[in-house]
Amino acid sequence: MMKNLVIGQSGGPTAVINASLCGAVQAWKEAGQEGRVYGMLNGIEGFLADQVTDLTALSEEELKLLRLTPAAYLGSCRFKLPEDLTDAVYSAVFDNLREMNIGYFLYVGGNDSMDTVDKLSRFAARTGSDVRFIGIPKTIDNDLVLTDHTPGFGSAAKYVASTVREIVLDASVYQQRSVTIIEIMGRHAGWLTAASKLARKYEGDNPILIYLPEAPFELEAFYQDLEHAFEKTANVVVCVSEGIADAGGTFICEYSDAAKLDSFGHKMLTGCGEVLESFVRDRFHVKVRSIELNVSQRCSGMLASRTDIEESAMAGAFGVRAALSGETGKMAAFQRISDVPYELSCCLEPVGRICNQEKKFPAEWISEGGSDVTDSFLPYILPLIQGEPKRIMENGLPRYLYRQPGAAARIKP
Amino acid sequence: MMKNLVIGQSGGPTAVINASLCGAVQAWKEAGQEGRVYGMLNGIEGFLADQVTDLTALSEEELKLLRLTPAAYLGSCRFKLPEDLTDAVYSAVFDNLREMNIGYFLYVGGNDSMDTVDKLSRFAARTGSDVRFIGIPKTIDNDLVLTDHTPGFGSAAKYVASTVREIVLDASVYQQRSVTIIEIMGRHAGWLTAASKLARKYEGDNPILIYLPEAPFELEAFYQDLEHAFEKTANVVVCVSEGIADAGGTFICEYSDAAKLDSFGHKMLTGCGEVLESFVRDRFHVKVRSIELNVSQRCSGMLASRTDIEESAMAGAFGVRAALSGETGKMAAFQRISDVPYELSCCLEPVGRICNQEKKFPAEWISEGGSDVTDSFLPYILPLIQGEPKRIMENGLPRYLYRQPGAAARIKP
Repeated sequence: MMKNLVIGQSGGPTAVINASLCGAVQAWKEAGQEGRVYGMLNGIEGFLADQVTDLTALSEEELKLLRLTPAAYLGSCRFKLPEDLTDAVYSAVFDNLREMNIGYFLYVGGNDSMDTVDKLSRFAARTGSDVRFIGIPKTIDNDLVLTDHTPGFGSAAKYVASTVREIVLDASVYQQRSVTIIEIMGRHAGWLTAASKLARKYEGDNPILIYLPEAPFELEAFYQDLEHAFEKTANVVVCVSEGIADAGGTFICEYSDAAKLDSFGHKMLTGCGEVLESFVRDRFHVKVRSIELNVSQRCSGMLASRTDIEESAMAGAFGVRAALSGETGKMAAFQRISDVPYELSCCLEPVGRICNQEKKFPAEWISEGGSDVTDSFLPYILPLIQGEPKRIMENGLPRYLYRQPGAAARIKP
Repeated sequence: MMKNLVIGQSGGPTAVINASLCGAVQAWKEAGQEGRVYGMLNGIEGFLADQVTDLTALSEEELKLLRLTPAAYLGSCRFKLPEDLTDAVYSAVFDNLREMNIGYFLYVGGNDSMDTVDKLSRFAARTGSDVRFIGIPKTIDNDLVLTDHTPGFGSAAKYVASTVREIVLDASVYQQRSVTIIEIMGRHAGWLTAASKLARKYEGDNPILIYLPEAPFELEAFYQDLEHAFEKTANVVVCVSEGIADAGGTFICEYSDAAKLDSFGHKMLTGCGEVLESFVRDRFHVKVRSIELNVSQRCSGMLASRTDIEESAMAGAFGVRAALSGETGKMAAFQRISDVPYELSCCLEPVGRICNQEKKFPAEWISEGGSDVTDSFLPYILPLIQGEPKRIMENGLPRYLYRQPGAAARIKP
């Protein structure tokens, strides 16, 4: 009997999560499947509310646009399935799977999404369901284990490296001493902040200092690093992960907790860049600016890496073929064959060994003193940021695919 | 006798200020001049300290790179010449001009830089010097009078529009109600914030609310605007100029002054986006995020407008030809001939009528209620963001021209 496939997106957006959708739809068609590919709106949360759309209905031109569209075309959710597999939510999901005649379930996301795939596949095994569950990795944080890297990381790294390179030019136009602190995403893993090393145009160029969450951050050591940096240049640029913490485990952004109320008593949230800005101003009496790269790190389609787009599509396609061949409870992972020339292949890893784990930035790639990243990181990161897609522009701006507002989702097809 | 030209950059960086340098050097060569084009390092400040470099020595390939390099290749300064023309600094400048055999002086910058050109040309007239002084406009703020627009604005507008479009996609992935507040540069003029209107993909799309400094901003009216916006969509994106102020003239960013100390007693600086974030969170109890687009607005070479690059080079070239033809005390201004097809020509305007003036965003282009920009703005802005340059990439990142660190400037050639 002809089965359908359903695919969902979950967790934070990336520049390439939609490329995985495209790859999945294309692989499904190439496999000659007659069933439909449904997209669940807002992940499992929307699926439970019967909110799906038919991705097989997208035209070739729409798929081309979708491939270059950042964020999450289907919408996303942050929804953790209960540990207790006897919870009613599981039968609700499987009722829907049956009613929509789904044979294959793909979920694109990070850690928590792999947890969803793990639980659903375990429930299926337990209840004798033959629905296949496959995870497609996605996170700018690059913190998933058992895969060389994650789709989304290369584009975010390319955004960080080129944006930091431009900010360095901007920060160096005046003669007066200055410190520019750039705060980069990454609460627990420093992969993305480490990519700022690529911004350097020559040995010794800015950003001179780079701090990751994997090494303890101490204010006094930071002040000394700054003093040494001022011996080399008047304009020092510092890159920090949002999640840097001291040896005692206290986040630097918590150093200003006591003052996080405005004059009306509202709570103000402050990032570590802003906190360090005031510390450095107070200590050095120089011009200081903090810059939070913010969500553009994860949603800049304009600066996406072509390699990352292609690999994300490849992961989506591989996931579909794996499901069709009967695999379940697995994630489409990347295995690097060589750095130069860069060669990559896909393989399957059990989601149960991936969810709830975190791949940290390797200690041996952090310089002594914890204020820089070593050159050993370069062969790993460089292939991931190569190439620019041919962008589709309209009236001077990027054209992106979006779901029509208010367009009703197809309910119970 | 063969004369040289000296050119300087002043004020904040833009994506295209270096394109004006290129245009000037090329026009100088095309005019068959045998003298050199010197670049003053860090503007008039560096010139007074004999810091110049020879731009005529740049190769064709270097000029091509320079044309696409953001920020200020020569470095910049914020230096206001004294009102008193008998001050010793004037004779110091003119001594240097004589020693370097300068016949033509070009200064690329905004308001304050035109003030410099004005004063120097008046001093020259007074002392019988035949050095010619010409201003080349440059500012992302688009706030110079007597010119249709300013070089730098188009690229910043393109950056704002495409980045806001991407942030809107990012901000709309979850079903839960949310407000995203994007703070855009512009202390006194709302031109750049108005460009966020272009981010809309369809009528009624985000950013639903746009506030400029030219209209008074009142919290209660803002809350009502937000309530209306929530009737249309769960995820509201708001764009605000950093300089929005209430009817009494108090900047919104000053609303939190009292709490601008962290737990160590350091002064914390807070933008209006962050201030509004806490107000909205407190009032609506929804997820709120504020995003400061920050310096990338003015230094993103990767998102520069080709039209802006070409026009900036044209302004530089026009300035050189004007100086060579004997003009002085003028600025190279833009005169728009038509919107469709877009046609532009250069003309000269007296710097004395430009400096210390500010061109505000027209009141008739602000919607009733002050929370949006009208469609009449579109024919004006659209031509300025058209086209993308062919970027020069290297290892996945933009290649930019920079001065070698520690390379000595040529002193008194």
